[in-house]
Amino acid sequence: MVDSPAPRKRKGERALAADMGWAETFIAVDWGTTNRRAWRIAGGTVEQEFEDGRGVLSVAKPDFPAAVAEVRERLGDHPMLMAGMIGSTRGWVEAAYVPCPAGLDEVAAALTWAEPARTAIVPGLSNRDPPDVMRGEEVQILGAVAAGLIPANCIVCHPGTHNKWAVVADGKLARFRTVMTGEMFSLLKEHSILSDLLTDDMGIDEAFRAGVSQGVGGRALTAELFSVRAGVLLGRRRKEDATDFTSGLLIGTDVAASLGEAGDGEVFVMGRPDLTRLYAAAIAIAGREASEIDGEAAFLAGIKAIAGQT
Amino acid sequence: MVDSPAPRKRKGERALAADMGWAETFIAVDWGTTNRRAWRIAGGTVEQEFEDGRGVLSVAKPDFPAAVAEVRERLGDHPMLMAGMIGSTRGWVEAAYVPCPAGLDEVAAALTWAEPARTAIVPGLSNRDPPDVMRGEEVQILGAVAAGLIPANCIVCHPGTHNKWAVVADGKLARFRTVMTGEMFSLLKEHSILSDLLTDDMGIDEAFRAGVSQGVGGRALTAELFSVRAGVLLGRRRKEDATDFTSGLLIGTDVAASLGEAGDGEVFVMGRPDLTRLYAAAIAIAGREASEIDGEAAFLAGIKAIAGQT
Repeated sequence: MVDSPAPRKRKGERALAADMGWAETFIAVDWGTTNRRAWRIAGGTVEQEFEDGRGVLSVAKPDFPAAVAEVRERLGDHPMLMAGMIGSTRGWVEAAYVPCPAGLDEVAAALTWAEPARTAIVPGLSNRDPPDVMRGEEVQILGAVAAGLIPANCIVCHPGTHNKWAVVADGKLARFRTVMTGEMFSLLKEHSILSDLLTDDMGIDEAFRAGVSQGVGGRALTAELFSVRAGVLLGRRRKEDATDFTSGLLIGTDVAASLGEAGDGEVFVMGRPDLTRLYAAAIAIAGREASEIDGEAAFLAGIKAIAGQT
Repeated sequence: MVDSPAPRKRKGERALAADMGWAETFIAVDWGTTNRRAWRIAGGTVEQEFEDGRGVLSVAKPDFPAAVAEVRERLGDHPMLMAGMIGSTRGWVEAAYVPCPAGLDEVAAALTWAEPARTAIVPGLSNRDPPDVMRGEEVQILGAVAAGLIPANCIVCHPGTHNKWAVVADGKLARFRTVMTGEMFSLLKEHSILSDLLTDDMGIDEAFRAGVSQGVGGRALTAELFSVRAGVLLGRRRKEDATDFTSGLLIGTDVAASLGEAGDGEVFVMGRPDLTRLYAAAIAIAGREASEIDGEAAFLAGIKAIAGQT
C-alpha cells in the first residue's frame, strides 16, 4: 500500500480509479525498461496507439515529466494510467509493491498518484519467500483472468528479459518466481566467450529441441554452456546451431526447474508471440502442454479493469 | 598429434624435448588470456621470472613474434616452452589438442614447434563426451602428479574464468569438465541488472556460506540470481552481502553439480590461492574435504617434467 494524495472515496477501493474520471476516455501506458507502448481508450475501445523506444533507461530522471507530456501530445490530454518499470526506482515515481496474494482489487486500490486525479501508476507485486518483485506482468496476468482468457486457477509463464512464473489461485496472483533466462542469453550473446557463436535469430529447430532436452535433463547450466564452444572447436557441433541450441538449453533449464516449483495445473504462456512460441515448444518437450496468450490483449484487459472499464 | 617441423629422434617421444636442449637453461611461459608469466629455469631451479598483462587478447596476431622476443629480452636468449592460450585459435600458433586420457608422456610428445629447436607450445587436452577443451591447466595437474603433490588417482578442481574439474586416474588426466562459473560472475558483475550490487571484493563470510548452501541445494541458478536483487529491493537482504552471496551461490551450484559428476575420490583445489580458498570452503559446505595446491608450484613441476628437468 502506498500513501496517495488522492482522497479515498465511498464504496470499495476499486471504485477509486473509476471515480477519478477514467470511465470516459483515458490513456493506458505499458512503460518498460527499453520500450513504451500507449493506447487511448474510450468506453473500453482502443482508439489510437503508439509504441516507441523511450523505455525508462533512456529517460533521465528530470526528463520524465516531459516524456509523460509527450504521450499526451500524441494521444490527447486525458488522464493516464501507467504500469511497468515507470514505477520502479529507475523510473519516474516509485510505486510501492503490493504483497501476494493479490487480485485486481488490491492492485487498483494501491495506485500511486503522480498528479492528483490525472496521472497514476499501477503498483508492482512482491513475493515474500523467496523475495521477488514484478512490475507490469501483473496487469497482463490479472487482466487475462478478468477477461476469461485464462482460468482462475492455473500456472502462467511470462517470458522476457526476466521471465516470470506465476501461480494463479482463486483469480489472484498467489505467488511467483523470476528467472533471469532472457538476460542470461543477452549477456552470453553480447559479452561472453560464446558471443561469436550466438549471432543468428532464435528459432525452433532440431538444435533448439536438443538444447531443451539437455536443459530439461537438469545438468549444470554453466557446464553445458561451455560445451557449446568446445563442441564447435572440436568439430562436433555446427556453429550455425549454436544460437538455437543455447537458447533451448537456457529455456529448457528454466522450464524444468520452474514447472517443478509451480506444481500441477494448466499452463499458459503469455507475452510477446515470438517468445511464447519458444516456451510453449519447450514446455511440450518437458512433457506438459501450454496455451499461448497474447500479452497485449491481456494487458488491455487488465488496465481497463483497473480503470473500471470492464 | 600435430605435424612438427622438428625431426623425431631416437627413444621415446618424451626424449624429444630434452634432446632439443631444454636440459641446461630454458624459459617457461604460462601465457593466458589476460596475463602471462615467465620463468628462466636452469638445472631445475628458477633463476628469474616476471609477470605482466600481455595476455593473448592484448596481442594482435602479427605482433606475437615481437611479444615472444620481448620475453627473451627480459630473461635471456634461451629455448622457450610455452603453455596456455598462446596455443589457441586466439593465440600465436595453434597447438592441436591431445585427447584424454593423457599423461605427461602424451603431452611432451605432441609439442608444436613455432621455431624448430627453439620455441615450442604445449598442446591442449580435449574431452570427448561431453566435448570439452583445456589449455594450461593440464601442465599444472599433470605436474602435480609428477611432483607427488597429488596422488595418481584423485579429483582436481581448478577454479578460474573457466573452472576445470578433472578426474586423475593412474597418473593420467582421464576426463574433465569446464564450468563457466568465473565468467558468469564477471558477466553479472560487469553487465547485468545485478551490477550495482556486485561491487565488493569476494570473501568467505556468512553471506558466502548462505549462498553456497543455496547453490548446493540445487535450485535453478538463474532464479536464485534474481532473488539477490529482489531481496535488496524488498529490504530482506543487505546490499553489502550481495557480492559474497552471489559468489557463494555460483560456486555452490558448480561444486554440487561437478562433485556429483566427478564421483568419489580425494579432492584437490589447484590454482590461485585467492580462488582455491573460496572453492575449498564451498566443497567443505557440500560435505567433502579438499586440499589446496598452489598453481604456480604445480605449473613449474609440470613444465620442468615436459622439458625433461624432473
